[in-house]
Amino acid sequence: MSTLRAPNPDHDAPEGFEYFPPPLAPAEPGPRRTPAEEARTLLAHSRIATLATLSEDGTPWASLVLFGTCGDGAPVLFVSTLAEHGRNLERDQRGSLMVAAPQRHADPLQNGRVTLAGTFSKPTGAREEEARAAAYAAMPYGRTYAKFADFHLWVLDVERVRWVGGYGVMGSDDAAAYKAAEVDPTYPNAQHAIDHLNDDHADALLEIARALGGYTDATAATCTAIDRYGLDLSVETPRGTAPSRIGFAERVETADGLRGATVELARRARAAAA
Amino acid sequence: MSTLRAPNPDHDAPEGFEYFPPPLAPAEPGPRRTPAEEARTLLAHSRIATLATLSEDGTPWASLVLFGTCGDGAPVLFVSTLAEHGRNLERDQRGSLMVAAPQRHADPLQNGRVTLAGTFSKPTGAREEEARAAAYAAMPYGRTYAKFADFHLWVLDVERVRWVGGYGVMGSDDAAAYKAAEVDPTYPNAQHAIDHLNDDHADALLEIARALGGYTDATAATCTAIDRYGLDLSVETPRGTAPSRIGFAERVETADGLRGATVELARRARAAAA
Repeated sequence: MSTLRAPNPDHDAPEGFEYFPPPLAPAEPGPRRTPAEEARTLLAHSRIATLATLSEDGTPWASLVLFGTCGDGAPVLFVSTLAEHGRNLERDQRGSLMVAAPQRHADPLQNGRVTLAGTFSKPTGAREEEARAAAYAAMPYGRTYAKFADFHLWVLDVERVRWVGGYGVMGSDDAAAYKAAEVDPTYPNAQHAIDHLNDDHADALLEIARALGGYTDATAATCTAIDRYGLDLSVETPRGTAPSRIGFAERVETADGLRGATVELARRARAAAA
Repeated sequence: MSTLRAPNPDHDAPEGFEYFPPPLAPAEPGPRRTPAEEARTLLAHSRIATLATLSEDGTPWASLVLFGTCGDGAPVLFVSTLAEHGRNLERDQRGSLMVAAPQRHADPLQNGRVTLAGTFSKPTGAREEEARAAAYAAMPYGRTYAKFADFHLWVLDVERVRWVGGYGVMGSDDAAAYKAAEVDPTYPNAQHAIDHLNDDHADALLEIARALGGYTDATAATCTAIDRYGLDLSVETPRGTAPSRIGFAERVETADGLRGATVELARRARAAAA
């Protein structure tokens, strides 16, 4: 696993190029979800993906699909051989799925997305039953398609996970990490928490940025993301705008645990400033 | 070019399966945009796509990209070799782009999307200038990326277009058709026209379905899509729900021409019923 929280230092940057103003006081970057956790969480709350398969002439073929997800995170497709992607899979089972988070930023490249690459296979036995149920749950007409002999179930054996969370926030994970990773239980409540923090607790966010983020000259802070491990701030300073990741004291274990964790963070920031 | 307006008869359907109740009176299915016109129109109003490229191990790789569009419809990417898709393109220039229309239907498979397949190349001369301007227009930080030596412009030479408009509404076009096709000028006003027809002119839609769509037993009709060639209705009958395509008398040539064309259609339906 490799996760970068600042723009990739390997970029072939022009001399003297500065990404963001650095913190002025020492600050430990907070922990965040692994790429595998990001992927499991995103897939658990999505059903639309883009599939890449290999067309007959060797050209990679991108197509829209609906997908379900098995209990171990394996994505399931239910597609027809009348569609090019269905014929492609019959011929070559290698492929990948790209799943994007809902667009929340004005810049689409700041939104999270994940690519899962691996090999598809037609499930059998108990796995087929699980896959079928997952496909039906995701596809409004899944049960109707099942009456057509040209529709087939495919399960992706995920070999590789690539997650991009925005500029310079990215990482990779392998098959074992993907299978072992948990869905973040706080995900369904994250947007509400972000809106609430920004609308009603801008003062607390500013204190957190100053006392815990190391941005002692911060003039404002906005929450841009929140998860079971902590929150992301966009911090305004006289030196420019910078991202800052602040970790919670403990990982949140329940869907409704974000409120308690942020209250603790605000208390800690106030104590550090006093 | 092949465009199907009913579910593909090649589906391996169970015996006696009926897609939709047929019209009861003769009705000529109205003309619609070609797959090439659908693609040109969709790309002209989009900047987010999924790119399929070929990874080093031979697996097709799906990734999120922003794109611009040249005057002849050729899509432009501006991507880094630090990203897997950027490295993939340096190694193998074959690829495709999937662009999806905004999600307007409860069932995502009823939404339009297009795949453009072909070969990417790095533009030079005047083409490079055009491509660069198109990329900058689409990407908030395009000009910033340009300072990094690892970012490269790529233009897709479109060889093949595949459009899917929903269940059983699909078709393909070739490179020449794509280049020659026009952007539908009414596209930006389509959603407003659909909402207006459904909210304020349900009676006229019902008359159109009965008199021009051949659904003489229609009890209600909803507009699901509209373009320069005509409109799509979802028609309720005692025999079930059916789609019906109704053509305008003439192709609409201006962005604000949908109103006049639908008024003419309603008048024609009333005259036919009288």
